[in-house]
Amino acid sequence: MLIVMEHNATPEQVDAVEAAVEALGFRAEPIPGSLRTAIGVLGNQGYVDDTAIRELPGVREVIHVSKPYKLVSRDFHPEATVVEVRGIAIGEGYPPVIMAGPCSIESEAQMLASARLVKAAGAHILRGGAFKPRTGPHSFQGLGVEGLKYLRQAGDAVDMPVVTEVMRIEQLEPVCRYADILQIGARNMQNFDLLKEVGKLDHPVLLKRGMSATIEEFLAAAEYIVAEGNRRVILCERGIRTFERATRNTLDLSVVPLIQQFSHLPIIVDPSHATGKRPLVPVMAKAALVAGANGLMIEVHPDPDKALCDGAQSLNEEGFARLMQEMGGLIKYLGY
Amino acid sequence: MLIVMEHNATPEQVDAVEAAVEALGFRAEPIPGSLRTAIGVLGNQGYVDDTAIRELPGVREVIHVSKPYKLVSRDFHPEATVVEVRGIAIGEGYPPVIMAGPCSIESEAQMLASARLVKAAGAHILRGGAFKPRTGPHSFQGLGVEGLKYLRQAGDAVDMPVVTEVMRIEQLEPVCRYADILQIGARNMQNFDLLKEVGKLDHPVLLKRGMSATIEEFLAAAEYIVAEGNRRVILCERGIRTFERATRNTLDLSVVPLIQQFSHLPIIVDPSHATGKRPLVPVMAKAALVAGANGLMIEVHPDPDKALCDGAQSLNEEGFARLMQEMGGLIKYLGY
Amino acid sequence: MLIVMEHNATPEQVDAVEAAVEALGFRAEPIPGSLRTAIGVLGNQGYVDDTAIRELPGVREVIHVSKPYKLVSRDFHPEATVVEVRGIAIGEGYPPVIMAGPCSIESEAQMLASARLVKAAGAHILRGGAFKPRTGPHSFQGLGVEGLKYLRQAGDAVDMPVVTEVMRIEQLEPVCRYADILQIGARNMQNFDLLKEVGKLDHPVLLKRGMSATIEEFLAAAEYIVAEGNRRVILCERGIRTFERATRNTLDLSVVPLIQQFSHLPIIVDPSHATGKRPLVPVMAKAALVAGANGLMIEVHPDPDKALCDGAQSLNEEGFARLMQEMGGLIKYLGY
Amino acid sequence: MLIVMEHNATPEQVDAVEAAVEALGFRAEPIPGSLRTAIGVLGNQGYVDDTAIRELPGVREVIHVSKPYKLVSRDFHPEATVVEVRGIAIGEGYPPVIMAGPCSIESEAQMLASARLVKAAGAHILRGGAFKPRTGPHSFQGLGVEGLKYLRQAGDAVDMPVVTEVMRIEQLEPVCRYADILQIGARNMQNFDLLKEVGKLDHPVLLKRGMSATIEEFLAAAEYIVAEGNRRVILCERGIRTFERATRNTLDLSVVPLIQQFSHLPIIVDPSHATGKRPLVPVMAKAALVAGANGLMIEVHPDPDKALCDGAQSLNEEGFARLMQEMGGLIKYLGY
Repeated sequence: MLIVMEHNATPEQVDAVEAAVEALGFRAEPIPGSLRTAIGVLGNQGYVDDTAIRELPGVREVIHVSKPYKLVSRDFHPEATVVEVRGIAIGEGYPPVIMAGPCSIESEAQMLASARLVKAAGAHILRGGAFKPRTGPHSFQGLGVEGLKYLRQAGDAVDMPVVTEVMRIEQLEPVCRYADILQIGARNMQNFDLLKEVGKLDHPVLLKRGMSATIEEFLAAAEYIVAEGNRRVILCERGIRTFERATRNTLDLSVVPLIQQFSHLPIIVDPSHATGKRPLVPVMAKAALVAGANGLMIEVHPDPDKALCDGAQSLNEEGFARLMQEMGGLIKYLGY
Repeated sequence: MLIVMEHNATPEQVDAVEAAVEALGFRAEPIPGSLRTAIGVLGNQGYVDDTAIRELPGVREVIHVSKPYKLVSRDFHPEATVVEVRGIAIGEGYPPVIMAGPCSIESEAQMLASARLVKAAGAHILRGGAFKPRTGPHSFQGLGVEGLKYLRQAGDAVDMPVVTEVMRIEQLEPVCRYADILQIGARNMQNFDLLKEVGKLDHPVLLKRGMSATIEEFLAAAEYIVAEGNRRVILCERGIRTFERATRNTLDLSVVPLIQQFSHLPIIVDPSHATGKRPLVPVMAKAALVAGANGLMIEVHPDPDKALCDGAQSLNEEGFARLMQEMGGLIKYLGY
Repeated sequence: MLIVMEHNATPEQVDAVEAAVEALGFRAEPIPGSLRTAIGVLGNQGYVDDTAIRELPGVREVIHVSKPYKLVSRDFHPEATVVEVRGIAIGEGYPPVIMAGPCSIESEAQMLASARLVKAAGAHILRGGAFKPRTGPHSFQGLGVEGLKYLRQAGDAVDMPVVTEVMRIEQLEPVCRYADILQIGARNMQNFDLLKEVGKLDHPVLLKRGMSATIEEFLAAAEYIVAEGNRRVILCERGIRTFERATRNTLDLSVVPLIQQFSHLPIIVDPSHATGKRPLVPVMAKAALVAGANGLMIEVHPDPDKALCDGAQSLNEEGFARLMQEMGGLIKYLGY
Repeated sequence: MLIVMEHNATPEQVDAVEAAVEALGFRAEPIPGSLRTAIGVLGNQGYVDDTAIRELPGVREVIHVSKPYKLVSRDFHPEATVVEVRGIAIGEGYPPVIMAGPCSIESEAQMLASARLVKAAGAHILRGGAFKPRTGPHSFQGLGVEGLKYLRQAGDAVDMPVVTEVMRIEQLEPVCRYADILQIGARNMQNFDLLKEVGKLDHPVLLKRGMSATIEEFLAAAEYIVAEGNRRVILCERGIRTFERATRNTLDLSVVPLIQQFSHLPIIVDPSHATGKRPLVPVMAKAALVAGANGLMIEVHPDPDKALCDGAQSLNEEGFARLMQEMGGLIKYLGY
């Protein structure tokens, strides 16, 4: 931590700040400059709460050097984390893993049809939502536990692991029973209680980036899970909120190489939610692979125009099959 | 809903869209223009899911006229909602209500001292956090139920209603037992399960705006609560996330008159979290009153430099007393 | 400047960074920490270009302590700048100055009617646009020099100084001839050549904040003007671009006290462009006064529904007169 | 244009709106709904100024269907524009064009060395800045006309067309004399006078997206140039401003397929300014190609650590040569 003093701070003010730093158990190292004095804080083992210092007289700014995460940082744990789910490896050094399926589970038949078509096209993991977070209360909210059963049956029928979103702690028990991977949605990225609970479980966790979360907050959210003992965390970029409204969100692909530099956790990309537009999904899916994504999550529906949720961003059988074929060539080109 | 066709859409494409609209049970009204055709959708009783239409050939854009909320809209319910809490009225036509207290409940003594000083200065409702959402897992997370007891004791000692944040459904029972108002924090504004649960209760709910929530999403979140039967919802602006980093968030004061135009619910302002900087709190608190806020939520701590949370944005006894005096004059000037 | 090294940076890497700092003519002061080493840079007289350092091996982050402005900073020049225009003082310690008039100058008659009505209501400075920056080329672009003459005539008729926007260097000569204050619009806030040219003139400059400019960039733009010798700069907040679309822009009122803390220059607020909605203008104008604005710029039109530009955010005669009366009381209440 | 009335608008208010529409010379078509009335506006030949209507009593919202651009839209001009510069074709159906060179022209030797190294690696067009827009006035501002000469000499020496930024109208004459392509920087995207002037010239124009410009504004800016007669416009995505600060800007790659859908103009990507970080440049360059970019603009410097500007985002000889080789394979894979 570095404390920058005002240009005209008095020696007494500098002394008072040094005393406050030492009262916190750290060492203060003044760095006199030609324009102003700065004070380095030494001896801390991580992020320091600057409350006692930030508003002292003569203090202009407090600059944090430590980050609010450590267990998930590449800096302290250089070796990449590879998450394995029923024989499928997700992470550095492995071919990108494709998760696909409908936004919502709508019926046994729809789920089974979805599973068959994504399996046939070559996807690795089946997705489907039983509990749906919807902006307004008057929209379809998902089938709940009934849906989880359809998802599991469909996954078993085609021999694929399944991933589904969990929205509240009470849902953890049934979701763990039926699903292989627990998804935490963007709206819950800072639902810290939920993060802590999934941190105590064995199931891998797919953590989506909050729609206005910085990379630092995203990694700090993952730290909540890992701090409880569960190291099997997969990060997922799904677009951030910006002033641009031509797309549903703005897909931030540079987060992929950045996360891989800052953290050892795998990161995948969801081009369906990021763009919200079917014609953009294939092109952004391929761009994500080139950006280094360890996997993709893609919405596919046997009949998108009749989907109860997000049909406009879902691919149909033909569209997904074509994309899988194109991606197959690209993945090969990329050397996997 | 209005469907805008491409300039060069064929008559067959227009027909197909009309058929799709009618299949949804609505009426389609083509509006031929000199440059392109648009199709009005008539007969809907609210927001329409556009999935079946948005990606049909020849469709350029779908424009929604209905909003994802109705119960909270002023349009349909012109009369202002006034929320009463133990004799204190919050809403249109009543003097602004001041909620004050520490960010975190730290001890019995700290809470009691806080209560006494905010009461002495003239505040109406006591705040204090027992469950704290913190960006990283290595920060102080709150005293939990123990803290709730201190809050209740302190409120009773000075005869003030108390408000505190609830972060998960399991906390509802103790929080309802000890608190008069349930606060839903910004990070949980779209924790829809939590919203539905507080919607089933009798306690008034203070709903904070999510840090990247549009006004439409904010009101749709309130709709979740009201739709379950609980109409005692108080909205709270607490700053939004923008590119500017000189303040913690950007306080969006124009949301106050806008919400009052769109909705009948009361809206208050939290200048402490919005700015994150003590010297800005008083000036923005007063600006919020002039903008028409029905109340304020202000962080106050007996010894901010020793606060375990957000001390840098908390006022001390003297600062809060001075602000209350200034605001007293201003409120009188405003005609209450 | 502070250079933060990676956790596992080698001593050789630290040495290389120190050498690079010294090659720039500065002194390097290592600050060994328990987790990593930081290196303080001493001896610089302002902002340092970090190009030679930022990507050296082992460097994690470079943190700038100095700002890209100095002449406009309160830190180095504590005394407030008061800009005087024909006997009207704008700045700290003086009553807020009201600038009002139409968005566009449309005709001699419209400009004269506007001048009379804003004068009658008590405004101090007359505004009107002769050169209009419009998003698309097919919108009305302003009357040009002809408009400047109408503006000057109208100002003279009611004895008010006039302010108008200048968009390009070639317009400086006529604009200086006819206007008392030169306005630089938000889209030109980083048109550095234009800034330099107005920096060489004697006319006061009203500099509007760019729609996505940070406070630091805003002050750095003002620095361009002051660095050329013209110290008569008035800053103007006019809303920033955020994800919210219910208003034209998001009015950032906390910038007012912040700018007054960081800089000695006066700052005024334009609630008309910030909100884009007539019903919000009066309430935000008053909130801006309470936030400490040194003045306001308000769009007024004798017949807003027939305005060629921005009529929807313009007040009419009655609305402006009412607002001036309300603001008069408020300004008195604030102690001027 | 569609005018949405309040739920409780009176028949008289609806009549008044219809009259206002007809006074503008358009036809009004009421669309009565079950909840509210909407009024379609027919007969307009493009974007309509809604000033006279937006604030009439009973009006809730005005929705624009037409866009503020038409000449650049794919809707009206389906055929792709291919810009040819000295035998190099930029646009749909042609292999991506690589523009490379230093941020700033620093000396004759540096420019020549840059030209040789980018030519040797296979780049097509040479870039270099003679006039530099810098946030603060105390940074290096470029060599001016002297620099233009070095750029031209270097381009001629290696037989490459050259592109350079023009910041003001007075610079157009020398820049046109020395350069093949005129670049309009992000800060000048809405410098409408400059746009109009380059619209009158024959030189191709490289127009960079403003840092908070929507796609609609970006295309409307291009419309300014094309409306004056110059159809040789190349668009350039260079990152937008968001809340994320880990990168200099957020590269918005989905703008590439979107622009190609909305407009017939070519679009290229600048990964150097978008990310501001050398290690991210190659990966985002390749992702941009897969997203369909018609070209790339990449900063290259013979000795980045000694660059006077933006060295931290510049590639050196080896880095650029490696990237060109990788991109060569990828472009071939993509079928060019």
